[in-house]
Amino acid sequence: MKEPLLASCPSESEPQSLGGPVIGIIGSGDFSRSLAIRLVACGFKVVVGSRDLNRVARGLFPDGVELRSQREAVDSAEKVVFAAVYPAHYHTLVGLRQQLAGKVLVDVSNATRLNSGEKSNAERLAELFPQSRVVKGFNNIAAWALQVGAHDGSRQVPICSNCPDSKATLLQLARHLGFSPVDFGGLCASKDIEEAPLMLFPSWGGPILITFLLFLFFYGYNFMRLILLPYLDKGENNFYQLPLVTVNETLPAVALVTLALVYLPGLLAAVFQLGRGTKYKRFPHWLDCWLCRRKQLGLLSFLSAVLHAVYSMCLTLRKAAQYTLLNAAYHQMKGGVENSWVEQQVWRSDLYLSCGILGFGVLTLLDITSLPSVGNALNWREFTFVQSGLGYAALTLSVMHTLFFGWDFAFFPVAYPYYLPPLYLLALIPPCIVLVGRIFLALPCLALRLAKIRRGWESARLWLPNNQEPGSVEVDPPQSFGDI
Amino acid sequence: MKEPLLASCPSESEPQSLGGPVIGIIGSGDFSRSLAIRLVACGFKVVVGSRDLNRVARGLFPDGVELRSQREAVDSAEKVVFAAVYPAHYHTLVGLRQQLAGKVLVDVSNATRLNSGEKSNAERLAELFPQSRVVKGFNNIAAWALQVGAHDGSRQVPICSNCPDSKATLLQLARHLGFSPVDFGGLCASKDIEEAPLMLFPSWGGPILITFLLFLFFYGYNFMRLILLPYLDKGENNFYQLPLVTVNETLPAVALVTLALVYLPGLLAAVFQLGRGTKYKRFPHWLDCWLCRRKQLGLLSFLSAVLHAVYSMCLTLRKAAQYTLLNAAYHQMKGGVENSWVEQQVWRSDLYLSCGILGFGVLTLLDITSLPSVGNALNWREFTFVQSGLGYAALTLSVMHTLFFGWDFAFFPVAYPYYLPPLYLLALIPPCIVLVGRIFLALPCLALRLAKIRRGWESARLWLPNNQEPGSVEVDPPQSFGDI
Amino acid sequence: MKEPLLASCPSESEPQSLGGPVIGIIGSGDFSRSLAIRLVACGFKVVVGSRDLNRVARGLFPDGVELRSQREAVDSAEKVVFAAVYPAHYHTLVGLRQQLAGKVLVDVSNATRLNSGEKSNAERLAELFPQSRVVKGFNNIAAWALQVGAHDGSRQVPICSNCPDSKATLLQLARHLGFSPVDFGGLCASKDIEEAPLMLFPSWGGPILITFLLFLFFYGYNFMRLILLPYLDKGENNFYQLPLVTVNETLPAVALVTLALVYLPGLLAAVFQLGRGTKYKRFPHWLDCWLCRRKQLGLLSFLSAVLHAVYSMCLTLRKAAQYTLLNAAYHQMKGGVENSWVEQQVWRSDLYLSCGILGFGVLTLLDITSLPSVGNALNWREFTFVQSGLGYAALTLSVMHTLFFGWDFAFFPVAYPYYLPPLYLLALIPPCIVLVGRIFLALPCLALRLAKIRRGWESARLWLPNNQEPGSVEVDPPQSFGDI
Repeated sequence: MKEPLLASCPSESEPQSLGGPVIGIIGSGDFSRSLAIRLVACGFKVVVGSRDLNRVARGLFPDGVELRSQREAVDSAEKVVFAAVYPAHYHTLVGLRQQLAGKVLVDVSNATRLNSGEKSNAERLAELFPQSRVVKGFNNIAAWALQVGAHDGSRQVPICSNCPDSKATLLQLARHLGFSPVDFGGLCASKDIEEAPLMLFPSWGGPILITFLLFLFFYGYNFMRLILLPYLDKGENNFYQLPLVTVNETLPAVALVTLALVYLPGLLAAVFQLGRGTKYKRFPHWLDCWLCRRKQLGLLSFLSAVLHAVYSMCLTLRKAAQYTLLNAAYHQMKGGVENSWVEQQVWRSDLYLSCGILGFGVLTLLDITSLPSVGNALNWREFTFVQSGLGYAALTLSVMHTLFFGWDFAFFPVAYPYYLPPLYLLALIPPCIVLVGRIFLALPCLALRLAKIRRGWESARLWLPNNQEPGSVEVDPPQSFGDI
Repeated sequence: MKEPLLASCPSESEPQSLGGPVIGIIGSGDFSRSLAIRLVACGFKVVVGSRDLNRVARGLFPDGVELRSQREAVDSAEKVVFAAVYPAHYHTLVGLRQQLAGKVLVDVSNATRLNSGEKSNAERLAELFPQSRVVKGFNNIAAWALQVGAHDGSRQVPICSNCPDSKATLLQLARHLGFSPVDFGGLCASKDIEEAPLMLFPSWGGPILITFLLFLFFYGYNFMRLILLPYLDKGENNFYQLPLVTVNETLPAVALVTLALVYLPGLLAAVFQLGRGTKYKRFPHWLDCWLCRRKQLGLLSFLSAVLHAVYSMCLTLRKAAQYTLLNAAYHQMKGGVENSWVEQQVWRSDLYLSCGILGFGVLTLLDITSLPSVGNALNWREFTFVQSGLGYAALTLSVMHTLFFGWDFAFFPVAYPYYLPPLYLLALIPPCIVLVGRIFLALPCLALRLAKIRRGWESARLWLPNNQEPGSVEVDPPQSFGDI
Repeated sequence: MKEPLLASCPSESEPQSLGGPVIGIIGSGDFSRSLAIRLVACGFKVVVGSRDLNRVARGLFPDGVELRSQREAVDSAEKVVFAAVYPAHYHTLVGLRQQLAGKVLVDVSNATRLNSGEKSNAERLAELFPQSRVVKGFNNIAAWALQVGAHDGSRQVPICSNCPDSKATLLQLARHLGFSPVDFGGLCASKDIEEAPLMLFPSWGGPILITFLLFLFFYGYNFMRLILLPYLDKGENNFYQLPLVTVNETLPAVALVTLALVYLPGLLAAVFQLGRGTKYKRFPHWLDCWLCRRKQLGLLSFLSAVLHAVYSMCLTLRKAAQYTLLNAAYHQMKGGVENSWVEQQVWRSDLYLSCGILGFGVLTLLDITSLPSVGNALNWREFTFVQSGLGYAALTLSVMHTLFFGWDFAFFPVAYPYYLPPLYLLALIPPCIVLVGRIFLALPCLALRLAKIRRGWESARLWLPNNQEPGSVEVDPPQSFGDI
């Protein structure tokens, strides 16, 4: 196949730099099998080394895979050898030191548990085989992804190693298999890479907890105010409200407050910067964390809003609603009221419904851009527009929704049974603070100063070259909801 | 531009290994034009070879594209030549054998129809030009994708060839044009690559059929039970229920059963493994297929659930609902019932609505992770948590939704007109089986044995190195909904 | 680390062609810092050159980054130097000409404003440093993306340069950092690359404007017909309808017309092609633009449909609805009507609700495929099926929805107060035109001729090789909704 005219052509390099057609895999487990399937599908020769050939079900491996002893497998591998065995069994491989010397030895193992003080598996492997070039990677790909792997181009594969060449080889190999490798630097990064697959939504813990506590508090408040106290006091039985009505009164409050929590840290950051007159000082840790959790808070706020919307639209399906209506009809009849129309009530309900629906719509647009594939298609300015512009629009509309809902009740003592204000009044406080703060920061005097600071201009060093990208202020990662 | 200091720099290799700046295209059709546009945009020189230059509208090609005779085009191409002509016209190119010898000849054609017994176009081309290196690829990219191509980074381009070097060249070229090439191995794969663009949702046929049949059956059952028989029997005219009410009673049943079908195969797989005491035996074919269709079943179940939700929320919009209410009011009045409130009914309706809404919410979260861009961002553990954990939560909530809806009716003969049980009772059977089975498998004795088997530990060979990734059991492709 | 046995191995090339471990960055702003963080994370040595070291907060840079003078930074950079300073400060770098000679100088700046007649920053830089190889790129990546960068594999990075080698180096570097570089050719492209980040949804302006104007017109029409005229005429006060009812009558009309506008241009294109008997003539500009905006129109139509759906489902929540019902009950009672049931009305409402819900469902499926990650997973045939097949299904269902809603009212004079037809009649005109036109084009005589033309067969040159992919007619970019 090779003719002189190509022999010297650099494109030669690729297949060779992939360690040549023959790749070795030690171990015959599932990962080994899946990896073999993918490698063969991508045109490599694969030699799988098993410790006990008789026990390996040949049928599970595709054609084009040779099953051999571990030693033979390593020998026949031209450059790259995958160690697809339990880290616990690494010591069983020391016999292969000679064969593995100088070869690229890939550690594909996951950590067995989080934050174990110990060394990473890859580092242990590197110690066991000082003469091999240990590379860490591929561990975050499930075996299925290797077997099917279609439409998986955007699956990122972190890879690290102390040997740049070997790393480069694995980077190419990963790309060749249709993944997007990311270079994580030296073996020191292997610990993180190994633990990544054990993480369970690490960035969601805090936000979920906060949302949940808010829900508990508001639910309890409503329960006490509208159900328990009236029961103890007048013996009213409103317990039927527990499963749906009370929940549906709690959810919007949660949504409103969490949405406010999305925009509050941005304001605080701005205040910090104004106060310090520079953006080159790190924020207090709690603020940094908060800023990095805005996206999650925003999505949880959206979730509450969705649930509130669905609950509300189901309200008229409830038997309770029917009965109330029927009884109302009965009393209207008895009272001989021909027309029960109350213009003010009509306007009120229509207005708060409209605001609610529009606010909800804006919030939805906002959250669609949180989908990676959509967000990636936006440039910085579009992202800011959506997150900040639409975000504040949604916040304002939700506040109006609540205000119209509350209408003028707030000014009648009857709204304060047992001196407890209605829930929506409490829920309005944070968003109102945010909106007022935002308007305050929009005052020219402050806004201009802030803009200067953001551009890195500090009174003293206007001349210093700085980032030309307003977006890249570290206070303002755009993957977070909204900005200052 | 080239200075000695760089002349020997390896980075040289890339442009050269891309066949140098000049790339040839035979044929001047749409694909040829679009390809030329993209290549020029990416900094290549392009020579398009047409059979009759006079007939080609020069204006359709961008500047930087030379229009020549086919022979000249091939000659001036340094290494890569695209054959953008109908496979039917390949024979017209035999005159160019000499010019094409040793060059990389790219077949970009699609199959004309599925499962034709014949050879693939690429294989035919390879026979016609034994001295050229035929590469198959780029056929799955529509011309538009070549012209616009933005945000298309994740578009995968399968490529195969018997010549590793030429393949490597095309892989690089595809990457260079902003696609994600995937190496499909030798030319033998070209058949699949050519037929792929003709497939119409291949993985959806079965699930859609099953869902549709379920719908038909349940709809027919409801029609007979609630409309036809009462009509024949007492002459009741309920036909007005056909368009909406009956459909809305059928959909939840379909959703419930299909959701159960998502989790059933996982249980069966577990039973198989327990029975055989190993995971290294292939499952019967039907089970494998079923396991691979769980995602589709899950999405169809979700679709039915969504429709059911929307239908239900529209119930009160129906004139029928209004009339019923008005008549009820009339009769309450006549009956002089001041308060028609029935506490039990209130609780029942609120409870089944709540369960329904929550179950629906969980199902939605579940389905969001089915979006490629979201799913790719999850690691294995997160995926399992969502698919299995949330999945069973949704199933349980839906079952409760149905039970609360049915309440105690099931125990009254009136619920069995013509001895036909209400639909929701039938629909409850599969999910209940699944839930019971799941609980059964969670019994320590079984669960532990299963876990051991999953880790590949078989009584006899605990010492055999195995896959360290619980996820990668082939019974359990995580792209499928839920797991065992 | 390097042993002879590998010294000559091509995989060497990769790290070297990445400009070796040491990369220089001029400027110490945010972008510089973020870039440094990512580079170090990917295993490069980074030397940052600042003009005034004392002023740079060392703490902001990660370990592994050397802070030096600009001159030293450039000197120690082996090959690649990033110019992360304001374009306004480029002239301050001329002192480094000698050091920068022969090196790859990367311009990462954004344009300061759109359509400025001036040269691009990159071109200016190239003039200032004729001996350096200026490459444009990385400017569309926000600093945060550089810092976090996870799951960002599909982020495309346009890169252009007049020096192929340097461009190749940067392409590799970008890929190495986990982005998807796209080669945009020569420096002439730098203008577009610099302005891209300033664009604000460029493709949405027109469609949004059209949708908005449609909304205004229909809203005004409804306002005049149902509120203003009756008020002036009979003094009826229907103003309470303004916030919700009127909006909800306007939205479906907007949705219907915009959806028709999605499919109209396809028909026009077909007519043009039939008339000219060829597809190799450009369409008039307005048609091209229209064809390219179908996706946006479709999404806006969907948005209106969603809002209409939500509004409608909230109708029964309105106090107004309650009052109307109560009064109805009162009058039924007074009138002594025991059963107000009107079979025809029941059928009508159920039918239009069903059609509406189904049409909405189909439209939703349609729009899910507009998500990049989903659309990329579809092949051409699937995309056409969804966009064209489902699209027309949705259109037909929406038309039926409207017809059933209108029922036979259209034939009574009462439907034409002040001789103004109801809005839904007006809104029905465009979709009906589209459907009729579509049926017309489906007539065998026309359909066959069109198919021939689409395949590029023109009476005169049946023998001319053409594109084998029906999809790639430029009239029909499938990223747009529906096709002909």
